[in-house]
Amino acid sequence: MKRLDEIEWDAFSRLPIEDKKPYLERKEGDGLPFHTLFAQQFDRGALERLCALASRIRFINKSREGALYLKSILAHKRAMLYFSQPSSRTFLSHLAACQILGMTTGSVRDAATSSEFKGESHEDSIRTFSSYFDMIIMRSPVQGLAEKMAWELSNSFRPVPILNAGSGKDQHPTQALLDIYTLVRSFEEKGGIDGRTVVFCGDLMRGRTVRSLSWLLTDFRDVKQIFVAPRELQVSADVVMNLAKKGVDFEVTDDLRAAVRTADAVYMTRIQDEWDSAKGESAKIDTSRFKFGAEELSLLGPDGVIMHPLPRRDEIATCCDRDPRAKYWRQMRNGMWIRAALIAATFGYEKEIMDCGY
Amino acid sequence: MKRLDEIEWDAFSRLPIEDKKPYLERKEGDGLPFHTLFAQQFDRGALERLCALASRIRFINKSREGALYLKSILAHKRAMLYFSQPSSRTFLSHLAACQILGMTTGSVRDAATSSEFKGESHEDSIRTFSSYFDMIIMRSPVQGLAEKMAWELSNSFRPVPILNAGSGKDQHPTQALLDIYTLVRSFEEKGGIDGRTVVFCGDLMRGRTVRSLSWLLTDFRDVKQIFVAPRELQVSADVVMNLAKKGVDFEVTDDLRAAVRTADAVYMTRIQDEWDSAKGESAKIDTSRFKFGAEELSLLGPDGVIMHPLPRRDEIATCCDRDPRAKYWRQMRNGMWIRAALIAATFGYEKEIMDCGY
Amino acid sequence: MKRLDEIEWDAFSRLPIEDKKPYLERKEGDGLPFHTLFAQQFDRGALERLCALASRIRFINKSREGALYLKSILAHKRAMLYFSQPSSRTFLSHLAACQILGMTTGSVRDAATSSEFKGESHEDSIRTFSSYFDMIIMRSPVQGLAEKMAWELSNSFRPVPILNAGSGKDQHPTQALLDIYTLVRSFEEKGGIDGRTVVFCGDLMRGRTVRSLSWLLTDFRDVKQIFVAPRELQVSADVVMNLAKKGVDFEVTDDLRAAVRTADAVYMTRIQDEWDSAKGESAKIDTSRFKFGAEELSLLGPDGVIMHPLPRRDEIATCCDRDPRAKYWRQMRNGMWIRAALIAATFGYEKEIMDCGY
Repeated sequence: MKRLDEIEWDAFSRLPIEDKKPYLERKEGDGLPFHTLFAQQFDRGALERLCALASRIRFINKSREGALYLKSILAHKRAMLYFSQPSSRTFLSHLAACQILGMTTGSVRDAATSSEFKGESHEDSIRTFSSYFDMIIMRSPVQGLAEKMAWELSNSFRPVPILNAGSGKDQHPTQALLDIYTLVRSFEEKGGIDGRTVVFCGDLMRGRTVRSLSWLLTDFRDVKQIFVAPRELQVSADVVMNLAKKGVDFEVTDDLRAAVRTADAVYMTRIQDEWDSAKGESAKIDTSRFKFGAEELSLLGPDGVIMHPLPRRDEIATCCDRDPRAKYWRQMRNGMWIRAALIAATFGYEKEIMDCGY
Repeated sequence: MKRLDEIEWDAFSRLPIEDKKPYLERKEGDGLPFHTLFAQQFDRGALERLCALASRIRFINKSREGALYLKSILAHKRAMLYFSQPSSRTFLSHLAACQILGMTTGSVRDAATSSEFKGESHEDSIRTFSSYFDMIIMRSPVQGLAEKMAWELSNSFRPVPILNAGSGKDQHPTQALLDIYTLVRSFEEKGGIDGRTVVFCGDLMRGRTVRSLSWLLTDFRDVKQIFVAPRELQVSADVVMNLAKKGVDFEVTDDLRAAVRTADAVYMTRIQDEWDSAKGESAKIDTSRFKFGAEELSLLGPDGVIMHPLPRRDEIATCCDRDPRAKYWRQMRNGMWIRAALIAATFGYEKEIMDCGY
Repeated sequence: MKRLDEIEWDAFSRLPIEDKKPYLERKEGDGLPFHTLFAQQFDRGALERLCALASRIRFINKSREGALYLKSILAHKRAMLYFSQPSSRTFLSHLAACQILGMTTGSVRDAATSSEFKGESHEDSIRTFSSYFDMIIMRSPVQGLAEKMAWELSNSFRPVPILNAGSGKDQHPTQALLDIYTLVRSFEEKGGIDGRTVVFCGDLMRGRTVRSLSWLLTDFRDVKQIFVAPRELQVSADVVMNLAKKGVDFEVTDDLRAAVRTADAVYMTRIQDEWDSAKGESAKIDTSRFKFGAEELSLLGPDGVIMHPLPRRDEIATCCDRDPRAKYWRQMRNGMWIRAALIAATFGYEKEIMDCGY
């Protein structure tokens, strides 16, 4: 473990992502994060511990007594949710995670309210929040901002943890955690994730969830990845190169049905046309063969799972919604549990919760 | 009692409102609601139990110990307030009701924040909220939406209750509950509601509160209803026909002062010009004789009560505000108590609270 | 002590500020406020008690047990934060103060949501909030509104306290409290505030913080005040006249460096160009000599302190941020503690907290 207050910002920011990891850990050196910035900072060991903790929290929360116990864990802490890039879904999931652990919260969550901060630097705004709160959960359209703020806070007189809830186009680490947790849960009584085939389908070029999940799956053994997309929206070269470098088996195709036949998990995504240039190029792409409907459902094996980061448009037909293999609603709820686990772990309560009598 | 997951949506939605009632009850079959959608789903028995529970909660809350006891009741639950049609008053009243019972809350309460949901179906949005919360309190400009969502949730793997806090032009059931509770409290030591004369005055055509309260009053014995309004804003035919069908004594008039002389309760409402067509027809109506001022106050009996759903403009002169017969402020606070009672009952805590030692 | 419900509004509003003070006290007559409206309502005794209580709360909050004890203090109360003039910083500070004491909160904090109240009078809106909450923390662009609302509530059937979090151009009493608390803390082991020299620099004409702090400092002995500003933005005549009348030593100058050499505390402020007329006159003023940087830092004595109400632009160079004499971050956090102290005192918990075993 290394310390963020012992390295200059310029030096830190230029490190490869693998070398940043030790700077983000808790000072107790227990392998869990203090700042959560990148999906890639979690190795298999950390992922499995967080998943186990999430399942423990989920179980404890079933009884009233258990729920009240969990609410006592962080009842002495306050979290700030700073969403300068609004997302009600992500906001509510983090909020619920805080509430499960008894944290009270404050929030800035829309452009209008946060515009007043324009006169001051991001550093000053974040320091303001750190004055009043014990953790900052932030979502921002500015690439790399969460990382900068984590460094700033670790070098201030009140170093509170940053939890990155989406930062620019590149990082949304807790989405990757919830995706992994959903796979772990789906296969936990069926031999686990190792050796599985995961199919990604849709707008693979512009979705940060695909890129993060693809990376994390390389921490598992023999997971084959198949990328199904129209040519214009196929997964980008750096993802492919990462897999090739690590010797991971993968395939790039435009045939969803063939892929579904071999799939253990199908991860559907929507066309992210909010990133279109003014010309609306997405509308010109034929995406009709990249949707999951009754036909695809019939091709999926009995233990297969269907996932989606939501919101969806028409990538998954609603006729699939009540099929037991459709996991996207549980996936969303899993996000709440894994975030609660992450927050509890950040504050050092992993062991207390794992060992409690509930 | 019947079950919402045993009837198709089309069949359910076509049922007369009376026949929908059994589908909305708690599965424990205790006569209290799981989903709260319509004013008409509450019969006299349910109304009286909710009013008794509201008064009990109000009493318990007077002491610090009692308030802390109440906060323990639903401390293990979380409520989502989804107000795609903003209303701070209604929002805050429900929020306070949740807080009295110890529920933590999340919210979406303005058009800007909720616009992001436009890309997805209402069904998916509501399912998102049900993933993170244990109850959904919703207000929407879309007529019938709360009903559809209740059906959807009851047919999902996580059937959480819907509390309708206003849905389109037609339904705002908790407003009707608080009106009844205000009448119950006002007359509780004076022989009750039976046999009273209730005067409605103002924009009776477009206010959903009048229509709901008129209906609920038919559950009581011998309550005469007098409707005072300019011709253009008089109560609509279906309300009158409901009363005629049930053999209830009523009167339609434009003479407020004559009505006040015989009234036990006067229910004032404002002109709802937000429903005007582009021509602003409300402004052309002479509403001067449909206001309650010093003169009307002098005509009201010593036990009479003045109510108003608020906000008001000039329908009630401020000189009436400190008269003990002016109940509109207490009426607003009653809304908080009856909503707390309704929420507690929805989760099955009626008996525990009624029997507690406070 | 006098009672607000025994004086008419016209008579009350015309009283000099000193004569209003006794009307704002708690009915227990313990010298602490019920309504907090003006910086000037706090005399030295009250200031010192609030500062002591803030330090006590800050200390108790260090341990988990202490924090949980504090959260029990007002767990039976609810606060409304009504910010019709948005300010996330002030909002979050008050929110955190409420949360430290266990109060749950509701809020209206942006123009869009509060626009719906336009149809009704301020009095009715405030009464609405008082129906659901036990304290109203309000911020408004309307001068004198908090005062009027305090009078209204004290004359209603539910007299809840008003805490003025900024009202028009003139009053922001809790900012003054946190400034005093920061000075008290900074000098508490170095002989206190008496006899110090305080330098104000920046836009002294339009900042309400300077005017309030200047007033409160006259409650202390022999505090010299130096006002450093461009001619167009110098402190206004009423501030100077108040000092002259009380025989306080002061100086008006445009030489910041000379002032810093003699300063115990330097209070920097930003140019408040939001108050500019359409002509943008601020941009034409040369403010270059009214900034605190490395040079000024080198002139400040070893025990000197640098303060700023924040947000800052470039009035203080970031190179000063890690100097131990830079107190502006702690000043912000002090705001949370002193507000918690004020709220606890308003509800009568000063003694319980001072005497508790933590």
